[in-house]
Amino acid sequence: MKKIAVIGGGSWATALVKILSENVQEITWWMRDKNNIEHIERFGHNAKYLSSIVFDLKKVKLTDDLKNALRSAEVIILAVPAAFVHETLSILKIGDFQGKTVFSAVKGIVPQTSQILGEYLNTQFQIPLLNIGVITGPCHAEEVALEKLSYLTIAGISSQYRAEMAKILTCRFINTVESDDIYGTEYSAVLKNIFAIATGITIGMGLGDNFRAVLIANAIQEIKRFVDAVHPINRDINASAYLGDLLVTCYSPFSRNRTFGVMIGKGYSVKSAQIEMNMIAEGYYAADCVKKINDENRIHLPISQMVYQILYKNKSVKQEMDKLSLQLN
Amino acid sequence: MKKIAVIGGGSWATALVKILSENVQEITWWMRDKNNIEHIERFGHNAKYLSSIVFDLKKVKLTDDLKNALRSAEVIILAVPAAFVHETLSILKIGDFQGKTVFSAVKGIVPQTSQILGEYLNTQFQIPLLNIGVITGPCHAEEVALEKLSYLTIAGISSQYRAEMAKILTCRFINTVESDDIYGTEYSAVLKNIFAIATGITIGMGLGDNFRAVLIANAIQEIKRFVDAVHPINRDINASAYLGDLLVTCYSPFSRNRTFGVMIGKGYSVKSAQIEMNMIAEGYYAADCVKKINDENRIHLPISQMVYQILYKNKSVKQEMDKLSLQLN
Repeated sequence: MKKIAVIGGGSWATALVKILSENVQEITWWMRDKNNIEHIERFGHNAKYLSSIVFDLKKVKLTDDLKNALRSAEVIILAVPAAFVHETLSILKIGDFQGKTVFSAVKGIVPQTSQILGEYLNTQFQIPLLNIGVITGPCHAEEVALEKLSYLTIAGISSQYRAEMAKILTCRFINTVESDDIYGTEYSAVLKNIFAIATGITIGMGLGDNFRAVLIANAIQEIKRFVDAVHPINRDINASAYLGDLLVTCYSPFSRNRTFGVMIGKGYSVKSAQIEMNMIAEGYYAADCVKKINDENRIHLPISQMVYQILYKNKSVKQEMDKLSLQLN
Repeated sequence: MKKIAVIGGGSWATALVKILSENVQEITWWMRDKNNIEHIERFGHNAKYLSSIVFDLKKVKLTDDLKNALRSAEVIILAVPAAFVHETLSILKIGDFQGKTVFSAVKGIVPQTSQILGEYLNTQFQIPLLNIGVITGPCHAEEVALEKLSYLTIAGISSQYRAEMAKILTCRFINTVESDDIYGTEYSAVLKNIFAIATGITIGMGLGDNFRAVLIANAIQEIKRFVDAVHPINRDINASAYLGDLLVTCYSPFSRNRTFGVMIGKGYSVKSAQIEMNMIAEGYYAADCVKKINDENRIHLPISQMVYQILYKNKSVKQEMDKLSLQLN
């Protein structure tokens, strides 16, 4: 079995290490935070995220040395938040990835380059597309901790590499689906955060479940138009990697993007919503990035456009939503 | 403007009369319950359903005489529960519908004939398909009462008739979408109740949001396969009439089909769940009916099949769900 390293110390990385522990005998787990590494090595659980998970330290080897983590492994799973990818990987060189397969479990866009991870890894580190894969949900990490049956889609151009990863991840509480759509799955995961913001806005404004159902139905149409335009391959947009991921995000009261939207819908300014939440929601960057990509493509994306206008152009929530409501079907 | 009669005294009929009151000067409203008619005429609101709605009795004329109601109108909106359609209409003859347009706002299958309403009206009363239409959601009646912005899809083969109906129904809190898919919209509205039961079962069993998102994504794929097979026309299955209606039903804690499913998932027998709920959920009939239709068509419908096996064949919920979970994508 190939040697695996997981890069990241957040909740999704933690969940992935738990899943891998079911099948893999040795996992290298990199995180930046030395104190947390010590905590895990001493107590067997991550102090900060999903702390109910107890790790088998005979299998899981922690390190804060990224180069070392990469050296130790043939397969890398990248699971740092999109906002920190560029900084985290900045110490690495092209050669560090030589001959390795890299799976992105990052959900988002690298803000510094406005790229999805596949493109980023391909252009920044010259990793061949054949060696790049994507691991995507619908999969809240919290439910992995509880061992609630969840599905992961493993996308890769190489049917061998994706099948190997799917096999490693399939376990009692994880089913896997394989896909060849490395771009569509990532773009879809990015777009859904914009729609979670839009969903939150409807809640903040006092719109009801009837309207939200229409909005989310139109959101998946919008995802389809976008991915069909930027990467026209044959795919079923209603597969769980696209529609399922959209649903679990938009309908979850725990989605940070949705919470951010609720505040915007209630009339908070973008700045005060960000200060109040003590973070910037992924979908905020995504709205800008998708807008830029779409300046060329000119795909009909009325919901994304509305979110962009509200967040970046200080447009009236009420007026933008009124305009949008005439464009839904 | 054509004269309109609404047939039915339940919550959906009540909501439709409210919507119509925005644009129509005279509405004939039939219901069986004389006491409730007296109550509405005296107090201006339905005693039993959505009682916050105050009707303008200068516009709304109530009657318990069905033949009379039909005689008075050129356009009929049928909004009785599917289980009572056959009995309610049994006093009518073919001639009573002569020259009239009939819109079905019934969500379900006529249990006595296992037909969707369009087929039923066409075969039982020889109403030409051209004169048949469908009014469908996603639209919880409760949110209409609150004037929360909602969307109705008006399906009809005749573009003139459906446009007229859409115009009448469009108002401050209702947007309308037109469609030519009189079969697909009705079948989809029927199938969604089966999926709401399936969703409830997952809740009763303790499965999580991750799994439910996968289930519902697969449910819309199943709707697509079904309607594409029984009525192959060009449609976008992610339009609100299909996907939106599925979402609002499956994600609503108030859905009776979902509640029924929760009890089944918790281990109640079908009989005790029905007794406890004091009613039979629509999706219960739908599961049987879809099974029968599919005995001929042999479409891949794993979720509907699971619900059928659990409800009618007393199969183990756990085993059926295990089987299903291997078939989702």
